[in-house]
Amino acid sequence: MTATDRRLYLAASINSTGWAGSSWSWPGTQWNRFNDYRHYLRAAQLAHDGVLDAVFVSDHTALQKDNRSRPLHSFDPTVLFAALAAAVPDIGFVLTASSTYNAPYNLARRLATLDAISGGRLIWNVVSSFNPDIAANFGAAPLPPRADRYRRADEFIRVVKQLWLSWDRPAGDRPEGELWNESTARRIDHHGEFFDVAGPLNVPIGPQGHPVICQAGASDAGLDLAARHADLVYASLLGKQAAFDYGVEVRRRAAAHGRDPGTIRLLPGLAVVIADTREEANHRHEALNGAGGEEGLIAQFANRFGLTGTIDPDAVLDPALFAHRQQQDGAVGFIKAFHDLAATEEVTLRQLVRRAGGHRTVVGTPRDIADAIIDWWAAGVADGFIVHTPVLPEDLERFVAEVVPILQSEGVFPTEYREPTIRERFRLPFPAVRTPGTPPAVPAGR
Amino acid sequence: MTATDRRLYLAASINSTGWAGSSWSWPGTQWNRFNDYRHYLRAAQLAHDGVLDAVFVSDHTALQKDNRSRPLHSFDPTVLFAALAAAVPDIGFVLTASSTYNAPYNLARRLATLDAISGGRLIWNVVSSFNPDIAANFGAAPLPPRADRYRRADEFIRVVKQLWLSWDRPAGDRPEGELWNESTARRIDHHGEFFDVAGPLNVPIGPQGHPVICQAGASDAGLDLAARHADLVYASLLGKQAAFDYGVEVRRRAAAHGRDPGTIRLLPGLAVVIADTREEANHRHEALNGAGGEEGLIAQFANRFGLTGTIDPDAVLDPALFAHRQQQDGAVGFIKAFHDLAATEEVTLRQLVRRAGGHRTVVGTPRDIADAIIDWWAAGVADGFIVHTPVLPEDLERFVAEVVPILQSEGVFPTEYREPTIRERFRLPFPAVRTPGTPPAVPAGR
Repeated sequence: MTATDRRLYLAASINSTGWAGSSWSWPGTQWNRFNDYRHYLRAAQLAHDGVLDAVFVSDHTALQKDNRSRPLHSFDPTVLFAALAAAVPDIGFVLTASSTYNAPYNLARRLATLDAISGGRLIWNVVSSFNPDIAANFGAAPLPPRADRYRRADEFIRVVKQLWLSWDRPAGDRPEGELWNESTARRIDHHGEFFDVAGPLNVPIGPQGHPVICQAGASDAGLDLAARHADLVYASLLGKQAAFDYGVEVRRRAAAHGRDPGTIRLLPGLAVVIADTREEANHRHEALNGAGGEEGLIAQFANRFGLTGTIDPDAVLDPALFAHRQQQDGAVGFIKAFHDLAATEEVTLRQLVRRAGGHRTVVGTPRDIADAIIDWWAAGVADGFIVHTPVLPEDLERFVAEVVPILQSEGVFPTEYREPTIRERFRLPFPAVRTPGTPPAVPAGR
Repeated sequence: MTATDRRLYLAASINSTGWAGSSWSWPGTQWNRFNDYRHYLRAAQLAHDGVLDAVFVSDHTALQKDNRSRPLHSFDPTVLFAALAAAVPDIGFVLTASSTYNAPYNLARRLATLDAISGGRLIWNVVSSFNPDIAANFGAAPLPPRADRYRRADEFIRVVKQLWLSWDRPAGDRPEGELWNESTARRIDHHGEFFDVAGPLNVPIGPQGHPVICQAGASDAGLDLAARHADLVYASLLGKQAAFDYGVEVRRRAAAHGRDPGTIRLLPGLAVVIADTREEANHRHEALNGAGGEEGLIAQFANRFGLTGTIDPDAVLDPALFAHRQQQDGAVGFIKAFHDLAATEEVTLRQLVRRAGGHRTVVGTPRDIADAIIDWWAAGVADGFIVHTPVLPEDLERFVAEVVPILQSEGVFPTEYREPTIRERFRLPFPAVRTPGTPPAVPAGR
């Protein structure tokens, strides 16, 4: 693999005790490890052992309702990743933070600080928060309508980017007299629909210009936000054709916003259930879901995703089954993914339960997992994946020990870290200051 | 020194490049180190070498106006301290965060995460933010009036404490079926003047119950807030009598709020200028301030603190000189400290400039510094100090190498870390849950 080859990207989710709801109480594990820093440190170290590009956490600023499932979101991601950045070199951090329940100055500053401390290893995954339980922790007002949240998210990201580029990097010889002036630290004087922010930021421009932006767009407004701002696009994409179509659409929209579509990296979610044989993997998959067998898994899935009435598990699914749920106010990603899969492939419910547990799921041997990764990547359908393992740390350990070496021996995944910043690793351009009449703020002597 | 002896506490400020405005460009230093994580890591490691109880940063969420002085506040304190907590054991963290420009749920969660990751080493220094430059980064509204900010701060702290105690620590055997329930994770359903917060927090109760609270109260409203909530009280106190009076007052008010005044630790700020001789120390003091000599220092001081007209530098100061500045909307701490000193001691301007650069200042030999520390501590006027050194890291290195050993040889300061949490180190009681009808949430099996 040479530096100019296209290359596969892999990030590992280190949320809570794992992707499986049952992972907190999985035999042989410490049940309360979601509340133990050393647990996350171990997961990040494993990801580093596997030369993975980044670790990922999603976020939700409320205690989830389901108290039989692992608490998916507990530690604050900025604080957790700052600690991990001090302890683990090289690895990138895909950090989820909401544009609905933060102030842009505060968040811009926290992320700029983390990017500086980590030496340019930060990726901000912007979410607009979709849950009334979150809203209830931030005032008496109900959750804003989706359109408002996305307009706010767009303005939020624009303000944050301006703040990140508002101060040049203090580099080179010591300046005479003034440490900064109007040409090196500029006010932004933003006055918009949602925010009034004077600036400049009190943290200088970082080692990679500013953090890389990630966005998971599923609804029309979400897709448009991703097309406007995202360097990395994270999405639930269950079928190869559906993923291809999605990638074409997000890049088409990006081009319409004047962006180079070749700089967008598509990283669908990928949930893996690994075992020595496919039969063992299927059994593990059922056990992780607390289902006695495949029929139980099917019934559970139908219940979980609101598939009412009797569905023949071996009949081809009608995409209309999922269409009716797309208009509601919650997250549309997972339901839309079912719809798009059924609209582009002939798939039965029996097949679907093995292929989708929210994200694209692969249940099989390490070779099966590696082949599934390479299949989409080689076809140009995905640039990589955000990998969810059911039980942390044991399944991540297995992924690193048994799947990654196959990818490396196939020549599609690196065996060592090369680029110092995550922006360079993803081969993304450095941002340029867009304020007219001011000098470019690209970092000097990085 | 035995475990039951009263003991001296010392925290070191690691703000920016040092206490002196000139520290960024001080000869022999790297001018842009305020933007380098390794600089703060080095300072925290030095503090640890000195067995200091904690490191401290103040905060200000705007770029300061004075561009010839070191930028006092740059990196976000939660992110910086999370990284340091992963890298440096034992040391506590006095973290400043505003109750005016944060949401209580978000801040409670970040601080709870940091307390968990650090193993119970966090102290939250609550500030209500007093600067219009900060306000301009958070919307078009002007800075709220002082009284509103303090009412908001009081409600903010009450909400944050409730959130911190809303979920017990998941400890002991694995629970059956449900990971939590209403008796282990309680909604708080707060509806107040400023906040509506449902809870529970999504981070369990921490290793020390919750972070220790620190507050710097100078105005009447600030003093009252400290008396209601603060375990540690940080203040600018320039004279021994003024400090004694302040301690009596804050403890009297705490008792009036039903608190045990014996659990309050008073830690005034202490700025030190260390040299081998007093003469050298005086010269260093002048050089740090960019003054050619003592007369220049006096003129600079008069100008900085708005002392108009001609003042005989060798005449006893009239406290009325400072009284007129106490009613304004900004921070009243430093001006009030001058007033209280002049009201309780006969002091000239020539003496004042050596004793006060904002905080109590001692300019002298390591023995002079140690004696000044022991003097107030032994008299029960202070429980310890938050020490500001003019140039970081060199003056902190000197403090640790030359002042701390004197304090240790005098038997007033420990030679090793003993208590795992900062709450135990400060000999403070663990918080108890106050919600009627629920079991106490003190941590089990800490």
